[in-house]
Amino acid sequence: MSGAPPENSPRVVILGAGFGGIAAARALASVPVHTTIVDRNYYNTFQPLLYQVATGGLNAGDVAYPVRNLLRRRHALDFRWGTVERVDADKRAVFLGDGTELRYDFLIIATGATINYFGVPGAAEHAQAIYTLDDALAVRRRMFEQFEHAVSAGGEGGVLNVVIVGGGPTGVEMAGALAELRTLILDSSYPSLDPQMGSVLLVEQKEALLGGFEGPLAAYAQRELTRRGVEVRLSTAVREVSAGGLTINSGEEASTFLPAGLVVWAAGVAASSVAASSELALTAHGRIEVGPNLAIPGRPEVFAIGDVAATPAPGGGHPLAQLAQPAIQGGHHAAREISAALSGAQPTPFSYKDKGIMATIGRRSAVAEIALPATRRLLPLRGTPAWFAWLGLHIYFLLGGRNRAAVLLNWAWRYVSWRRGPRVIVGG
Amino acid sequence: MSGAPPENSPRVVILGAGFGGIAAARALASVPVHTTIVDRNYYNTFQPLLYQVATGGLNAGDVAYPVRNLLRRRHALDFRWGTVERVDADKRAVFLGDGTELRYDFLIIATGATINYFGVPGAAEHAQAIYTLDDALAVRRRMFEQFEHAVSAGGEGGVLNVVIVGGGPTGVEMAGALAELRTLILDSSYPSLDPQMGSVLLVEQKEALLGGFEGPLAAYAQRELTRRGVEVRLSTAVREVSAGGLTINSGEEASTFLPAGLVVWAAGVAASSVAASSELALTAHGRIEVGPNLAIPGRPEVFAIGDVAATPAPGGGHPLAQLAQPAIQGGHHAAREISAALSGAQPTPFSYKDKGIMATIGRRSAVAEIALPATRRLLPLRGTPAWFAWLGLHIYFLLGGRNRAAVLLNWAWRYVSWRRGPRVIVGG
Repeated sequence: MSGAPPENSPRVVILGAGFGGIAAARALASVPVHTTIVDRNYYNTFQPLLYQVATGGLNAGDVAYPVRNLLRRRHALDFRWGTVERVDADKRAVFLGDGTELRYDFLIIATGATINYFGVPGAAEHAQAIYTLDDALAVRRRMFEQFEHAVSAGGEGGVLNVVIVGGGPTGVEMAGALAELRTLILDSSYPSLDPQMGSVLLVEQKEALLGGFEGPLAAYAQRELTRRGVEVRLSTAVREVSAGGLTINSGEEASTFLPAGLVVWAAGVAASSVAASSELALTAHGRIEVGPNLAIPGRPEVFAIGDVAATPAPGGGHPLAQLAQPAIQGGHHAAREISAALSGAQPTPFSYKDKGIMATIGRRSAVAEIALPATRRLLPLRGTPAWFAWLGLHIYFLLGGRNRAAVLLNWAWRYVSWRRGPRVIVGG
Repeated sequence: MSGAPPENSPRVVILGAGFGGIAAARALASVPVHTTIVDRNYYNTFQPLLYQVATGGLNAGDVAYPVRNLLRRRHALDFRWGTVERVDADKRAVFLGDGTELRYDFLIIATGATINYFGVPGAAEHAQAIYTLDDALAVRRRMFEQFEHAVSAGGEGGVLNVVIVGGGPTGVEMAGALAELRTLILDSSYPSLDPQMGSVLLVEQKEALLGGFEGPLAAYAQRELTRRGVEVRLSTAVREVSAGGLTINSGEEASTFLPAGLVVWAAGVAASSVAASSELALTAHGRIEVGPNLAIPGRPEVFAIGDVAATPAPGGGHPLAQLAQPAIQGGHHAAREISAALSGAQPTPFSYKDKGIMATIGRRSAVAEIALPATRRLLPLRGTPAWFAWLGLHIYFLLGGRNRAAVLLNWAWRYVSWRRGPRVIVGG
C-alpha cells in the first residue's frame, strides 16, 4: 500500500512465492526498497490443502492465488515469472532460465523444497509425490483412473490398492481423506465394484505416526485412521517401488511385495535445486546453512528462509521442520533485518514462536497442539474441537477473499451433503 | 430413480455424455431398459461456459460434472470410461479403444463434434480451439504466458495481440470477455505494460456477426464489442495461421499478415470421428444423416443426436445449429422413440421447439432472442435484461448443485469486486 520509493532505492530480490517469499514481500511493503519476486509459477500454492485437491474436495484454483494480485497498489513490488538458474553471490546477481540477470542489494532465497525419495529405487519413477498443484491433480487423476480401470478390468491384482508412504501430517491427511473418499465414492458411483476390493495402506518408517505430536494425539490419529479403514504399518521401510506396487521390509532380512495401483509419496522433502547450483554451504540434508539472523554466513545481504533453509530451532538441535510457520516467520524476520541493515542497526537473531501443529484425519476428526498466547504452552486438542480449529485456521491463512469463500462453500457443501464437491479430472 | 429392471431388459448404449447423451440417459430412467453411457472423459462439460474458464472467470471444476454422479440410485444406468473405436451396426455392437465390445438393442450416437479448420493451412497446428475443457485451460495458460513474456521481452512484434477467428456466439463471447479481462488485468497486475500495446481482433468471414440473430441485435453486439476495445473485421477470410500470427485476405487478391501471440479458433465444428469410422451415411459436412424421428435410415434402432447429427430443421433447409438445445431435445426424443418402439408404437417425427438463442458480450451486456411460451414468437432482448436472462438460464442448465453454487459465487464475487476470480494456470 506504500507509494513508490525513490528510483535509486535498494533492490531486494525474493526467489520463490511460497509462504516465506510472500510473507517477506508483504513485510517489505513498508520498507523503502524495490522488491522483485521470482517464481516459476504465476501463483502461490496453499500447500496445506493440496491433499484436498488430490482427493477431489477442492478445485485447483481454490488453493492457488495469483502472485500479481499482491501487486495491486504496491508500486515497489514486481513479479517475474521464470526459473532460477543460479545465484552469483559475488556479483550480487540472480540468473534466470531465459538469460535475464537480476541485480540485487538484498536477496531472500525462499525456493522451497523438492521431493526426497531417500534413494529408494523406483520411487521417483513410480510413486506420486504431493508437493505441487500438478502433483495433486495427478494423484486425483490416477485415483479416478484406478476406479475406472477396475470397472472395465475387474479389480484383480490389487489395482484398487493405494499405499501412502510417510506418516507425517501430509501422509495422515492423505490417508484419512482417501479412505473417506473411497468409501463414499465406491458406494455412490461404483455400485458394481466390491467395496472390500481395494485397501488404503499407510506405511511409516518410525514407530509412531505424526512424529512432532505428543504420544496420545498420535495414538488417537492412528485409531481414527484404522476406524476409517486405513491399515497402518509402523516401523516399516520401503525398499523399492515399481509399476505394480512396492516392496517393504518385513522383519530383519525378509521383504514383501504389496500390489498397488497408486503409491503416494509423502515421506519427506529436500531443498530445491537452486541451493545446490549456487555454491552456498549446505547441510547434509541439502538445506542452506544460515546464521542466527537467517543471513548466510559471510553474506549479510543474502537470507535463506523456509523449506530451503536449515533454520536453527530455538533450543538448538535439528533445524526447524519444513512447514508453513517457520517460513512465514522467517520471511517476516528477513524483511525486518533488511530494514534494520538500511538504518544501520545490528542484526537480531531469529526467534521462532511455536504456534503449534495440526493435522486432520477426516470428518470431525483432527489432532492439534495449539500454543496458548499467554504461557506459550501447547494445548492438545483432538476430535471435533481440533477439526474446527483446523478449518478456521486454514481459512484464515488462505490468500484471497474469493478463495476463502470458495473453500468455505466447498466445505460447507460437503459437510451438509456429505458428498464430495468437484471431483473432476482435467488435463493430461 | 427407478428400481432395477429385469435382467433381460433391452440394452441401450449411449455414446457421449454431452448435453444430448445426458438428456437421453435421464429420460430413459423411466423406461424399463439397461442403459450404458460411454465417454472418453469421466465428466460432462458445460460447454457454453468454457469461454469463462478460458478467460479465468471460472474454475475448470465449476463447469464439469462427474457422469457417475448421475448414476446415484439409478440401478439401470452404467458408465463406461473409454473411447469409441467404431460402431458395427450389423452386429449391433460398439467397440471401445480397449477392445471391449458392448452389445446393444438400441444405440444413441451423441459423440458431438471436433473442430473444423476448413482446411486453412497451419490452423490445426497454431490456432487454439475452444471446444473442450483442456482447450479452455490451454487458452488461459497461453494468454497469461503472453502477458508474462511481454513483461520480460517487452511486447514487441504483436506478442500481446489476440485474434479470434469466427464471429458466432463463441467468438463474440470470447472476444468480449478477453477485452474486458485484458483491460482489468493490464491495469491491476501489469502496471509496467502499456495498456495500448496489445489488441483484440475478431475476424468473421460473413458480412455480420452472430449469423443466427436478427440484424439489430447483431449490430448492437458489434457496437458493444467495439466499445470494449475489440476490433471487428467482417467479410474477412483467414488464409493461413502461423506461429507468429495469421494471414487474412484484404481485397480481391491481396493478403495481410497480422502478428499475434494467440489465435483462438471459434470458426466452427465438424462431426466427431466416430461418424466417419462407422460406415454410416454422412452429409457433406460430415454429420450423420438421420430420418424424421432421428433414427438412421434403415436402422430404426440407431439414433444420432446433437452436434454429430444432421437434425432436420422444422421448415427444412439447413440442419439445426450445433447448440445445446437441439442436442437436449434430440436426446429426449430418442428416449421417447425407444420407449415407443418397446411398446410397439409407431415412430413420431422430431419436432424442434426453438427456445431462442443468446450470447453475452460483457458486464451487463448481452443479446438474446427468447421464445415466448404462448406464441412461440422470438422476443429480442439486449443490454442488462438480456444479460440477466443469460445468467439465469446458464445457472439453471448447469449440472449439479455445487457447480451452480460455485458459479454463482464466482459471478457475484466478480460483479461486486469487479475483478476476476480464479485466474490460475495449472498443468502443462
